[in-house]
Amino acid sequence: MPELRKDPITGRWVIIATDRAKRPGDFIRQPVPPPSATVCPFDYGNERKTPPEVLAYRNSGDRDEPGWRVRVVPNKFPVLGIEGDLNRQGDGMYDKMNGVGAHEVIIEGPAHASTLADMPEKLIEEVLWACKERVLDLRKDKRFRYIIVFKNHGEAAGATLEHPHTQLIALPVIPKRVKEEVDAARLFYDLKERCIYCDIVRQEAAAGTRLVTETDRFTVLSPYAPRFPFETWILPKRHESHFEDADAPTLENLAWILRTTIRKIDKVLERPAFNYIIHSAPVQDGSLPHYHWHLEIIPKLTKVAGFEWGTGFYINPTPPEESAKFLREAGLG
Amino acid sequence: MPELRKDPITGRWVIIATDRAKRPGDFIRQPVPPPSATVCPFDYGNERKTPPEVLAYRNSGDRDEPGWRVRVVPNKFPVLGIEGDLNRQGDGMYDKMNGVGAHEVIIEGPAHASTLADMPEKLIEEVLWACKERVLDLRKDKRFRYIIVFKNHGEAAGATLEHPHTQLIALPVIPKRVKEEVDAARLFYDLKERCIYCDIVRQEAAAGTRLVTETDRFTVLSPYAPRFPFETWILPKRHESHFEDADAPTLENLAWILRTTIRKIDKVLERPAFNYIIHSAPVQDGSLPHYHWHLEIIPKLTKVAGFEWGTGFYINPTPPEESAKFLREAGLG
Repeated sequence: MPELRKDPITGRWVIIATDRAKRPGDFIRQPVPPPSATVCPFDYGNERKTPPEVLAYRNSGDRDEPGWRVRVVPNKFPVLGIEGDLNRQGDGMYDKMNGVGAHEVIIEGPAHASTLADMPEKLIEEVLWACKERVLDLRKDKRFRYIIVFKNHGEAAGATLEHPHTQLIALPVIPKRVKEEVDAARLFYDLKERCIYCDIVRQEAAAGTRLVTETDRFTVLSPYAPRFPFETWILPKRHESHFEDADAPTLENLAWILRTTIRKIDKVLERPAFNYIIHSAPVQDGSLPHYHWHLEIIPKLTKVAGFEWGTGFYINPTPPEESAKFLREAGLG
Repeated sequence: MPELRKDPITGRWVIIATDRAKRPGDFIRQPVPPPSATVCPFDYGNERKTPPEVLAYRNSGDRDEPGWRVRVVPNKFPVLGIEGDLNRQGDGMYDKMNGVGAHEVIIEGPAHASTLADMPEKLIEEVLWACKERVLDLRKDKRFRYIIVFKNHGEAAGATLEHPHTQLIALPVIPKRVKEEVDAARLFYDLKERCIYCDIVRQEAAAGTRLVTETDRFTVLSPYAPRFPFETWILPKRHESHFEDADAPTLENLAWILRTTIRKIDKVLERPAFNYIIHSAPVQDGSLPHYHWHLEIIPKLTKVAGFEWGTGFYINPTPPEESAKFLREAGLG
């Protein structure tokens, strides 16, 4: 009998197939292919092919020249424009505003063929620092109410460029799904006077069945009601609502645990395409006792079909206890 | 400058790219390939390869024999099991229940290579009748709180079998996204004493810019804040909350308008993979003044990436005014 499980935060029900649970070998493997040798705007020497950089960590060279270790540039084809007012207005019975926002790309070093799994740990740490610095800078702009940091790796996960990069989008509204998450966490806090994510971290560490690995600062787990097979969350053990408030030792540790987790996923699932998203509190809010930033990794293994779109109701063919076990037993950290 | 638009029902903001709007030719065309000549459990003579039928409209033959025009069978690999109690229970801090439900397949005639676009209108009407009949039968089971009817066409849209078919899933919970839609429509009704969908139908018919086509019973339109390019809705003009309450002339007209709309999409977008989902009120509710059943068609043209998963915030490269224009000008109805 399959099981219906409810995500304790969003209240979303998920069908977990328990009878014919899919194991890693059951998914159609489509490893992200090794990069081809095309001309890439993110390679050394092509700095003029991108908009001027807004941040770079450099060994040498001037602005928009080679010599950088990490480089942040506005997206050449931004989904939102940085200039202008929101100009909220009605449109008959509808509501709209100008698409004001920022869309930036964090280029993860000059090595075109590198991936998160084989990058030096120090470089990943610098990428995380660049994300933090950009969020801290952009949140000074009071038009921006939410900033999302995310990575699309592999074409199947929506990546259009091979060169390793992370993206950042600053939005003038709080996205619905974020609002739901933060509101639900507040409800729990009002009831219990505890952060629900802190409770999850404690309960999962004690139970161990969905635990992937942990360090002194982070817990990696398969959530109780995952939407997707091998969905994996990385949560800081110490309560903190905003990613951009993470301190130096936390980012250093996050770099290690993130690389380790991706290496496990690569080993078990043969280098799948994946997305990760940093879930963090709205940037104009002060520190929140009820929200807890974390990182969600979604390997791209299945197709989302009509049922999911229609209902927001997901069917997951792999119980999280099994995905956690595979990732745990992959070793590497 | 891109535009941020708010869906008036769910409150979801969508980014509509207006500057470099994508036209039909800009999408990577992946027409659904013509079916291959494999052995198919839905073909005549293979009736024993499926579970026993629960409904069939026949010209001849006995149960589970050839001679049927439309045939409904339980899914051989159901995502939920029909037997047993829900047995709601806690699991530490979490909640779960047994995966009780029904998962059926409506086989759209014996012709393996047929599609919705080239099927006889009468057959589509019978398929819709079969859906209605099955919902009416299943809703007698008080364990089921929601029944979703949907179609995945083409592998990219999640279809695993080529033979034309529709699916139906009966659920013991009301999915989150459905609940949000129904609740939001009730809020609007409480405020205005009008159905928001009736308002949309009237406003769009008057404005015309997002109108695709209409009959005396149905309006086809591109919604104001679509998540996906060429997302298209078919709404009955007369207020009705439940699809399964649609009468004979309505289903007859729906068959025509559905085929016409798919033909338009096929012509403009070169036979893309697509999903459609019937949005209807929860089956145990009586007739609702605030909810309005309708059908949403989503051609599969883009990949959903990390940003969308992370935020529930969609970027749509084609304004609905343009998709409506292309579909309108495709003629055919």
